[in-house]
Amino acid sequence: MPAWAYVNGKFVPFEEASLPVEDRATQFGDGVYEVARIYEGVPFAFSDHVQRMQKGASIIGIPWPWEEAELQTMVDELIARNNQQDGIVYWQVSRGTAPRSHVFPPQADPNLTAYTRDYPDHAAAWEQGVKVTIERDVRWLLCHVKSVNLLGNVLAKEAAASKGGAEALLEREGYGIVEGGSSNVFIVKDGVLATPPLSELILPGITRSYVLEIAAEQGMSAAERYISREELLQADEVFFTSTGVEVMPVAAADGHTIGSGVPGPVTKQLLAAYKERVAAACSTAPR
Amino acid sequence: MPAWAYVNGKFVPFEEASLPVEDRATQFGDGVYEVARIYEGVPFAFSDHVQRMQKGASIIGIPWPWEEAELQTMVDELIARNNQQDGIVYWQVSRGTAPRSHVFPPQADPNLTAYTRDYPDHAAAWEQGVKVTIERDVRWLLCHVKSVNLLGNVLAKEAAASKGGAEALLEREGYGIVEGGSSNVFIVKDGVLATPPLSELILPGITRSYVLEIAAEQGMSAAERYISREELLQADEVFFTSTGVEVMPVAAADGHTIGSGVPGPVTKQLLAAYKERVAAACSTAPR
Repeated sequence: MPAWAYVNGKFVPFEEASLPVEDRATQFGDGVYEVARIYEGVPFAFSDHVQRMQKGASIIGIPWPWEEAELQTMVDELIARNNQQDGIVYWQVSRGTAPRSHVFPPQADPNLTAYTRDYPDHAAAWEQGVKVTIERDVRWLLCHVKSVNLLGNVLAKEAAASKGGAEALLEREGYGIVEGGSSNVFIVKDGVLATPPLSELILPGITRSYVLEIAAEQGMSAAERYISREELLQADEVFFTSTGVEVMPVAAADGHTIGSGVPGPVTKQLLAAYKERVAAACSTAPR
Repeated sequence: MPAWAYVNGKFVPFEEASLPVEDRATQFGDGVYEVARIYEGVPFAFSDHVQRMQKGASIIGIPWPWEEAELQTMVDELIARNNQQDGIVYWQVSRGTAPRSHVFPPQADPNLTAYTRDYPDHAAAWEQGVKVTIERDVRWLLCHVKSVNLLGNVLAKEAAASKGGAEALLEREGYGIVEGGSSNVFIVKDGVLATPPLSELILPGITRSYVLEIAAEQGMSAAERYISREELLQADEVFFTSTGVEVMPVAAADGHTIGSGVPGPVTKQLLAAYKERVAAACSTAPR
């Protein structure tokens, strides 16, 4: 358990960090959140996370009173207080606390909470790849907002875990495999990358965009298009991306071996390049 | 503000009632809730609410350690402490508090919270009917679970309110008007009632089921079937039902006058019969 958390302007002992029962995230899922990876005491791609959060808040009409620099200062202090050299920082903005009514409250200040946590090592998974399952996507139609309405994701990832899967790939009727329960999905076929296009049905993943950028820099072809279940199962390589797992090779999906069942060359190349980018950004960041 | 709330076995001053930042309702919408109307100090249809909540918890795999009688005792004490003769009682069960991870935590006790609140008078609205709007249903596909993943409902009801609507009727692609943002919907055409059938796309409303029961007792014909936007706009009467608003006549939808623009005879008859049922149940309930 971390020592410190942040709640609306104050650093408080983590075990005392709480929100009122009428906080709107708690009662309506009426909030947005972000998770950034901390490497060497530095939150990677923090600015990208803040921008995404601000955009999501704007889409659902949550007021945004913060400058990015204020949030950076808050997170930096949290990391320092918790001496969190490696791990994650989670922060959440809800629409605020108000007598319960679906309609936006006439007066409410957003609730901002944050804390850091350790993050598990993925070395073995990167080395061997992981198993995933394909689950029905039952989520709402505004998945581009990183809101705390995550019960659909929770149920899919639990279904996957109950079958030994490290991730649930979500299949949306009429669209194919759209993303993972907490990741974006890519396939490689004949040297060409494919990942579903940005739309209201998928989260605009920050790692996803870095991977596309790296792929372009390395001269790989990449298509943003929907992927069918059949294509995925017959791909040479499959991987998923997220802030936490970075670039994670898939060894098998729903019991079907992907490619040769071990991480493929494109996946390994992208993971290595992503790690280089992280190392460069975090080792040179101002402290 | 009520004086008292309930949090995990204890009655606490309302302003101190809170949940940890890692409560799963707060971070994932991973919880279920109920709202019962209190009339004359008695929560109406309490048993129906508890049964629906228990069923919803079971669908999403939240353990259920309570007997109904324990919850009844808790709610009765809360009502007595707050001297809540008229109003609502809200209670919520989340999967518990655990280090954040989508997958169900290996160990977590559900968090049970509750409080009462005053409830506004609807006399004028019952008399005149209300305006509603029709909004796109962007919610997830398990709307039969009364979970706190309500952001789709929030956005629809806010969109309605911004246009002067008291409720948002939700139109799901391929299904028509499925229900309201926090209610079930009925139409009357040529003396026949219609309301969408129970499915994973609508909440099994308790008031809805009482209204269907009353309609049958009074010899009305009622069909459980989907309703198109056109049918709704051309209906003789439209009303919506919920624990709070009971049976609410619709005077206009998306600017189209419904019937003669005033509450119709079937709606008035059902509202009166519902109120009689409430009065009978609550005035004879043991204290």
